[in-house]
Amino acid sequence: MTQEEGETPPIKDYHEPPPAAFMDPKELTKWSFYRAVIAEFIATLLFLYVTVLTVIGYKSGVDKGSDSCGGVGVLGIAWAFGSMIFVLVYCTAGISGGHINPAVTFGLFLARKVSLSRAISYIVAQCLGAICGVGIVKGFNPTYYNNYGGGANQLADGYNKGVGLGAEIIGTFVLVYTVFSATDPKRNARDSYVPVLAPLPIGFAVFVVHLATIPITGTGINPARSLGAAVIYNKEKAWDDQWIFWVGPLIGAAIAAFYHQFILRAGAARAIESFRSTTHI
Amino acid sequence: MTQEEGETPPIKDYHEPPPAAFMDPKELTKWSFYRAVIAEFIATLLFLYVTVLTVIGYKSGVDKGSDSCGGVGVLGIAWAFGSMIFVLVYCTAGISGGHINPAVTFGLFLARKVSLSRAISYIVAQCLGAICGVGIVKGFNPTYYNNYGGGANQLADGYNKGVGLGAEIIGTFVLVYTVFSATDPKRNARDSYVPVLAPLPIGFAVFVVHLATIPITGTGINPARSLGAAVIYNKEKAWDDQWIFWVGPLIGAAIAAFYHQFILRAGAARAIESFRSTTHI
Amino acid sequence: MTQEEGETPPIKDYHEPPPAAFMDPKELTKWSFYRAVIAEFIATLLFLYVTVLTVIGYKSGVDKGSDSCGGVGVLGIAWAFGSMIFVLVYCTAGISGGHINPAVTFGLFLARKVSLSRAISYIVAQCLGAICGVGIVKGFNPTYYNNYGGGANQLADGYNKGVGLGAEIIGTFVLVYTVFSATDPKRNARDSYVPVLAPLPIGFAVFVVHLATIPITGTGINPARSLGAAVIYNKEKAWDDQWIFWVGPLIGAAIAAFYHQFILRAGAARAIESFRSTTHI
Amino acid sequence: MTQEEGETPPIKDYHEPPPAAFMDPKELTKWSFYRAVIAEFIATLLFLYVTVLTVIGYKSGVDKGSDSCGGVGVLGIAWAFGSMIFVLVYCTAGISGGHINPAVTFGLFLARKVSLSRAISYIVAQCLGAICGVGIVKGFNPTYYNNYGGGANQLADGYNKGVGLGAEIIGTFVLVYTVFSATDPKRNARDSYVPVLAPLPIGFAVFVVHLATIPITGTGINPARSLGAAVIYNKEKAWDDQWIFWVGPLIGAAIAAFYHQFILRAGAARAIESFRSTTHI
Repeated sequence: MTQEEGETPPIKDYHEPPPAAFMDPKELTKWSFYRAVIAEFIATLLFLYVTVLTVIGYKSGVDKGSDSCGGVGVLGIAWAFGSMIFVLVYCTAGISGGHINPAVTFGLFLARKVSLSRAISYIVAQCLGAICGVGIVKGFNPTYYNNYGGGANQLADGYNKGVGLGAEIIGTFVLVYTVFSATDPKRNARDSYVPVLAPLPIGFAVFVVHLATIPITGTGINPARSLGAAVIYNKEKAWDDQWIFWVGPLIGAAIAAFYHQFILRAGAARAIESFRSTTHI
Repeated sequence: MTQEEGETPPIKDYHEPPPAAFMDPKELTKWSFYRAVIAEFIATLLFLYVTVLTVIGYKSGVDKGSDSCGGVGVLGIAWAFGSMIFVLVYCTAGISGGHINPAVTFGLFLARKVSLSRAISYIVAQCLGAICGVGIVKGFNPTYYNNYGGGANQLADGYNKGVGLGAEIIGTFVLVYTVFSATDPKRNARDSYVPVLAPLPIGFAVFVVHLATIPITGTGINPARSLGAAVIYNKEKAWDDQWIFWVGPLIGAAIAAFYHQFILRAGAARAIESFRSTTHI
Repeated sequence: MTQEEGETPPIKDYHEPPPAAFMDPKELTKWSFYRAVIAEFIATLLFLYVTVLTVIGYKSGVDKGSDSCGGVGVLGIAWAFGSMIFVLVYCTAGISGGHINPAVTFGLFLARKVSLSRAISYIVAQCLGAICGVGIVKGFNPTYYNNYGGGANQLADGYNKGVGLGAEIIGTFVLVYTVFSATDPKRNARDSYVPVLAPLPIGFAVFVVHLATIPITGTGINPARSLGAAVIYNKEKAWDDQWIFWVGPLIGAAIAAFYHQFILRAGAARAIESFRSTTHI
Repeated sequence: MTQEEGETPPIKDYHEPPPAAFMDPKELTKWSFYRAVIAEFIATLLFLYVTVLTVIGYKSGVDKGSDSCGGVGVLGIAWAFGSMIFVLVYCTAGISGGHINPAVTFGLFLARKVSLSRAISYIVAQCLGAICGVGIVKGFNPTYYNNYGGGANQLADGYNKGVGLGAEIIGTFVLVYTVFSATDPKRNARDSYVPVLAPLPIGFAVFVVHLATIPITGTGINPARSLGAAVIYNKEKAWDDQWIFWVGPLIGAAIAAFYHQFILRAGAARAIESFRSTTHI
């Protein structure tokens, strides 16, 4: 069994970027770094604002009962999450890479596509953005917000914590695997600036995972989303289950990074090669 | 902190178009200008015709009660708005830029991407088109039209005017931010005529904002859409709230223009540069 | 007011194909012509099979009443029509141009993009395909088929014939206008074989017109679709209204062809130019 | 009637790959082969996991009755199947070709696009992946899984076996015909690595076939999907109908391969030509 890519890369028309530095102090002196952090903050704020508002608006409409069948339903909620990710990844891809999710940032950090300093800054910005986004929804109508669950992730009755954790792991695996596939440099050889089509499958991955796991956990697969809702909703049950929505997504992202880099891209062989030939331009 | 793009643009393979003239009298002598105004009129007419017809058809179907759950629902209404914008932006992008919305035109005017004369002409055409589009729907069945709310934007019970204004500001921000991201010349370097994929995220942005804010304001984020329905419906409540659907979207568009040009594109530094080097070709 | 494109086309990097011959006997000797006719037949057959099966399956499910809310509803029916057109235009664009609709063929004939012999052959193939497609659905379960309306287009109660005709005219205008915009040679300069993105807005146009006009006429905007269902359903009411579903779409397609060729593309000036310089290669 | 492509291919800017060897022992020595088999296994596992979880979650929600109309419904189930195929084909296209379905593999084998050894390996991996994916869903909540039909394909009341077989044949034809159209080398001339847009129409084809035939068979069109659910659900009725979900899809795929290669691509003439000139590079 030969590892064809690792041994004989005769004609490569794509450029494998060198792995990101673990710490990159020079990065912190550039405006583009702070701009990226701001973009992550705003994007995660808008993500939580739109999605939680959809959840609360739907549930309050059902309760009023005037038109019990016309609400957006679980399908509409899944569309809200998926569509927002599609739109926001599209908008921020060229600025920050369009993570909008600590699990995605963690996965890309493990694959050495972002530095530690950038990863931490992004995750802090995402969590703050999520809190602000849910806060605006609560500000719009605190009564509705509290009565209709606050958009918080919780384990549904009939499922134990292990199942919830498993659902979060596999769901995040689907998302982060899609992110890796969509941003593979092999693919983007022709697209010099941004991989224009990449946001669409990423958005659909988020959509379809929501269809499957809303009945189990409400679907987190994004620790910032779960934290933001828990902070603003601030009820015991939301905090009790909170660990599931951090441990699950981070494990799922790690498995996806491993699967893509070591199984699909034969990363082991390639890592050695890039170690030899990389020059930091 | 250095502003990398502003100071050292060594190899740029995209062309930043010069800012549009504030007034461009030469423009008014060209057929392409009038063609663009006509395209905006027709597109906004079709937009309101299809979307308001969907709203009225759905509500009249629910009332008949024969099949109370099979109607398109809020989800279907959101799809009608989002899909029409996708289709119409796709069709008119190469002719007029595909605004179909005074808030979009205003945002692009602030960013100096269209001249004042063009902006005013577009907005007038959009408003007239919207009135005609809703007028056709009323003409199809005046009884249904009046009984089922006429597609007019109004503040729902349980939300005060400040919330309505906030929802319109943030909703329009999402839309206009997407428009700016999608039409960024950095992105379009490869697409000589029209940025072929741009209409899709713009349409999805409209879709998802409708999912979130239909329960609050019916979702305006387009002053022509709100004015057209108010003129034809012509009831007191629709006129009382009308200012929300002009002030909100225009503020939201202005913030989006500022955010994209000054934060994300480091426009301040670039504006000075372009001031020095621009020659009107 | 100058007509800039007509008078001074200095640097054109796209090729305006010469108008199709009115009659092109040479065409009839080529396998590619018959292959295109076969592709139109099969595509229209599949289109009617899938869409009418969705309608009948939904209505029979509602009647059984076991799960009155879980059916696909009007929204699902609209998705069936729009998605099938997206898929089939995508599949047949490179073979026949992907019309699958006599109104589209008629509009493209008026714009001299297909010859008369090709237009007639396509329309015959489309109508036969539609009849066969609906026939298969009836064969699957004749009782359900007859009980649930047979997928036939009929004017709904509460709307007069003029409204039905108007809805068909405007709906077909939206579709054919999108077809013209999507297949504009200006757009396709970069896409040597098939305009890969074009089928998506065309499918969405069909989707959104269905959302708007299913409550009025069931939505025809495709004479082959209406004829196929009428032939197999074969009840008086379906035949009484049949003329609406031919006259409306053909008028709508003609207006769209005129609007695109003469208003948007400044076709009048260009027609003269092409008359002078065209050589049949 | 001349066969223009077959006889005179004067300027071809695309490369028709040589037909795959019937048996290709060299293939078995490459890491990329095993990587592709792993990717098919994982993708089919994720496909069944997400889709069957959506089905079970929806049905258990309806039964609880708390919000009888807000579930995803047949429309949401169809979206789950279609979206997952879009996402997974997008992710695995560059690794394995993105089959995720024995019928697709069979069709591509008949068209000599994959070797026999690769086809058999893929089909085994797909079936094992499907069984594991459904197994995880059962593990999450065995009671719900067994009570709500286990996601198994069965013929609905009111339709005989011939109709079920016909529905599977035509549904798979739509899917495999789309796969052939989307991966046609004519189309992909410009896309050196992966045909980036191809997964979208393939996903929509799966979506729309589900809309049409869920009321008849639950929609198989993928023998691995039907087998996986049958193995884990393991009730008599699911096994009795199992043959329909193998015979139907394989016939449908064969017809699609024949239609595309011999009718649309004039494969007969070309096969002879390629037989003469092919050299294995």
